[in-house]
Amino acid sequence: MYDGLKGFREFYPEEMSARRAVTDTIEDRVRRYGFREIGTPALERTQLYTDKSGEEIVEELYAFEDKGGREVALTPELTPTVARMVVAKGGELRKPIKWFSTRPFWRYEQVQQGRFREFYQTNVDIFGSDHPEADAEILAAAADVMTDLGLTGGDFEFRVSHRDILGGLLESIDSDVETTEAIRAVDKKEKIDTEAYYELLVEAGLTRSEAESFDSVLETDDLGELIAFAGTDRVEAAVGNLRAVLEAAESFDVREFCTVSLETARGLDYYTGVVFECFDTAGDVSRSVFGGGRYDDLIEGYGGEPTPAVGVGIGHETLSLLCQRAGVWPEDAAGTDYYVLTVGDTRRKALEIARELRELGHVVESDLSGRGFGDQLSYADGIGAGTVVIVGEQDLEDDAVTIKDMESGEQTQAPLSSFPPAEGRPTYEDFA
Amino acid sequence: MYDGLKGFREFYPEEMSARRAVTDTIEDRVRRYGFREIGTPALERTQLYTDKSGEEIVEELYAFEDKGGREVALTPELTPTVARMVVAKGGELRKPIKWFSTRPFWRYEQVQQGRFREFYQTNVDIFGSDHPEADAEILAAAADVMTDLGLTGGDFEFRVSHRDILGGLLESIDSDVETTEAIRAVDKKEKIDTEAYYELLVEAGLTRSEAESFDSVLETDDLGELIAFAGTDRVEAAVGNLRAVLEAAESFDVREFCTVSLETARGLDYYTGVVFECFDTAGDVSRSVFGGGRYDDLIEGYGGEPTPAVGVGIGHETLSLLCQRAGVWPEDAAGTDYYVLTVGDTRRKALEIARELRELGHVVESDLSGRGFGDQLSYADGIGAGTVVIVGEQDLEDDAVTIKDMESGEQTQAPLSSFPPAEGRPTYEDFA
Repeated sequence: MYDGLKGFREFYPEEMSARRAVTDTIEDRVRRYGFREIGTPALERTQLYTDKSGEEIVEELYAFEDKGGREVALTPELTPTVARMVVAKGGELRKPIKWFSTRPFWRYEQVQQGRFREFYQTNVDIFGSDHPEADAEILAAAADVMTDLGLTGGDFEFRVSHRDILGGLLESIDSDVETTEAIRAVDKKEKIDTEAYYELLVEAGLTRSEAESFDSVLETDDLGELIAFAGTDRVEAAVGNLRAVLEAAESFDVREFCTVSLETARGLDYYTGVVFECFDTAGDVSRSVFGGGRYDDLIEGYGGEPTPAVGVGIGHETLSLLCQRAGVWPEDAAGTDYYVLTVGDTRRKALEIARELRELGHVVESDLSGRGFGDQLSYADGIGAGTVVIVGEQDLEDDAVTIKDMESGEQTQAPLSSFPPAEGRPTYEDFA
Repeated sequence: MYDGLKGFREFYPEEMSARRAVTDTIEDRVRRYGFREIGTPALERTQLYTDKSGEEIVEELYAFEDKGGREVALTPELTPTVARMVVAKGGELRKPIKWFSTRPFWRYEQVQQGRFREFYQTNVDIFGSDHPEADAEILAAAADVMTDLGLTGGDFEFRVSHRDILGGLLESIDSDVETTEAIRAVDKKEKIDTEAYYELLVEAGLTRSEAESFDSVLETDDLGELIAFAGTDRVEAAVGNLRAVLEAAESFDVREFCTVSLETARGLDYYTGVVFECFDTAGDVSRSVFGGGRYDDLIEGYGGEPTPAVGVGIGHETLSLLCQRAGVWPEDAAGTDYYVLTVGDTRRKALEIARELRELGHVVESDLSGRGFGDQLSYADGIGAGTVVIVGEQDLEDDAVTIKDMESGEQTQAPLSSFPPAEGRPTYEDFA
C-alpha cells in the first residue's frame, strides 16, 4: 500500500463537502464586493522569492531544478505571483484592481495543529487605492466572511495595528535602530519569554530602558498618547491613517470586530500601513487564524509603477479549526434528491425518469450494479436519498411509479402523467 | 520584470470567469449524477508512478528530491492518487464509489496548441461496478457535460473501442504477440505513416500479412464479423460487453454521440474494457479532446482488493479549444449589479446602502479612491455596473437616492423607504 507524503492530505467526500461549503461561502461574499477571480500557476522561478527574501527562504520552499535547468519552486504564497501579474499588465488594468483566488500553497515546514506542508488560502487584494476605504473594505469583506460562516463577534477579533506607527515610534526613540528587526521582535513577543523579547529589541539597537518604554507605549489604548510620545509628523500621520481606517470600518459596519493592538505586527516584512490578524477570542486556536494588511511598496519592488495595495490571505486550515471550535463547521451537505429504483424489465424507463429529474437540476442516482430491490433500497438509504422512485413492472402497467419517502418509509403511487414533473421537486407528500 | 515559466499560465479575470463558468457547468452536471467531490495532493512519492510505468516516466515528470530526502513528483494525473485513496479505505466505502475533482496536473513536455505543462482536468470515476451501466453512466455524464456547454452532436463524437476486443483479436492471430505494443501501434496509427504503423505491428510480433488482416478487420462496422474473424470466446465476450454498453448508452439517451471505432485505443496501458475518446467532428482540434474507459485491474495493481473501475478525465485546455471553435466559449460573465456613488458628505449612508444590497446577494461596488462624480460614473461604466445608485446630499434631504440605468442613461429618484428593498433587485424601471 502506498502512503501519501507527510503534511499533504487527501479529502474524502464527507470532509471535502464541508471544505467546499466554506470555500463557496468565502468566495460568494468576496464576489459581492466586486472582487474578481484570477488563476495562477503552482510553479514559479525561485528567484521570484530569493530576490525579496534572500537565499535563506529556499530552506522553506519546495525548490528544485527543472529538466530545462531552471531553478523553480512550488509557490509558498500568492503575493509575488500577483505582483508579477500587476506589473505585467499594470497600465492596462482599471484601478482599483480587485482580485481573489482560492488555491493550495506549499512550504517545507514542521507539521503541527492547523499547519500542513500543503495548505489552502483565499487571497483577496485591492491594488491602486491608498485610501482608508480600501483597507476598510478588506476588513469588511473578511469580517463578513466570518459572520457568513456563522461566527460572531464572540468568536473572533481582528487585532489591528499599523506598521508605520511602530516604525515611527522606533525612529523617534533612536533613528539608527534596525526597524525591521525590532518589529520582528514585537511579532514574536507572545511566543517568547520577556527577557528574550527585550534582548531582541536591544539587539535591534535600543537600550534596555528604551526597549521598556517602547514596550509600555505599545500597550496604550489612547492613540493620542502615541503622538505625544513620539512627537513626530510621521507618527501623527500614521495614527491619523489608522484612525481613518477604523472610522471607515465603522461606515462598513465592521468596527465592532476590530481591536487596536499595536503588538500585532505580522511576520512578513513587506507591510507598510495597517496590518491585522484574526484571533480566536476563546484562545483554543493558539495561533493567528489569518491576517492581512497594506503593502504599498511591493509592486514597485517587483519593477512596477508605484501602486498602493492592501489585502488579506484567509487560511483555510486555521479557519476550519476556529469553525470547529465554535461549532459552525458545516455538516456533510451533499444529499441525494432521488434514487430511481428499477425492478424487473424497467431499466430503460427508470433511466429515462432519472434523466428527466436531472434535467430539473436534481441529484439523482440509479442502479449501476445489477442489484435487487432490497440492495438498491439499502444503497439509496446509504447515500441519503430523500425520495426513492420505484419503477416496477406493475407500476408501469398502472402508468405510474411508486414514490417512497425514505424518512417515514411511507409510499404511494404517482401517475406518469405528473411524474417526473415539468418543474419542482415533488415528494411523497405531493401524491399521498 | 519577472516572467512566468513556459507552459504555465496566469488567468486574468476575463479569461478566468469563462474558465470558471465551464468548470461550474461540468461540476454541476456530474454532481447531479451523484458524483461527490474529493480533494487530492499536488505532490506524491515518485515511486507511485515508476512502479507502474517504469523509470522512463520520470523524464515526463516534475520530479525531485525534497528536503527530507524523499523522491517526490508533481502529480501528472489523478488515477494513481485516487487508486491509493480507494486502497486505503476500500473496505469502508459504499460501492459503487462515485468521485470527481477538478484540479491542475503537471507534465514536463513540449508546449503546443492546447497542451501546457500545467493543465486542468475534471476527473470522474466509478469504482466497484463492472456492469455496462457504469460505463454508460460515464459516457452519459460526459455527453451531458458537452451539451450543457452548448455543444451538439454536430460538434463532437465519442469514438468508442474496447481494449479486450483488440487484445482478443491479436491473441487469436498469434498468442505470442506483444499485445501492449501492438495496441500502442493502433493508438499511433493516425499520427504516423502506414509503413511505420505496419512496422510497429511487425515489431510487436505479427507477420506483415497478419498485420494487414488485423488492420482491415478493425475497420469493420459489423461487430459480428469480429467474432467470426477471431472465433474465440474472449472476443465474443468482449464484443458482447461493448454491445451491452452501447445498449445502456441508448437507455441513458446518449447513444447518438457514440461511434464504434476500434482504431481508438487510448495511450495509457491500464485500460481493460471499453475505452473512448472525444473528438472534434470538424477536425479543427486535431488531437483527442479527452478520453476515458474501464480499468478493472488498476486498484489491485496498487495493492487493493480487485475493484472494477471506469472513468473519464475531461481536459479543460482542449475542451476550451473545442468550445471556442464551436462558438460556445462563455463570454466574460462577471457583471456588477450596482455601483453606489457617493457625492458630498454621504459616504456613510452610501456604504450602508451598499451593505444592504450585498446582503441581498448582489454584486456591489463603491468608491475606494476618493473620486469625484464623473470619475465614479466612469469607473461604474468600466466594471459593467447595470445600475448606479447615486447618494447625493440633495437626495438624502429628499429621503431618496437617484437610480441611474447605465444602458439608457436615464435616472429617477427612489424613496429610501423602498430602496434598498427587502428583497429582489430593483432597477430604474421599478421607480420610473
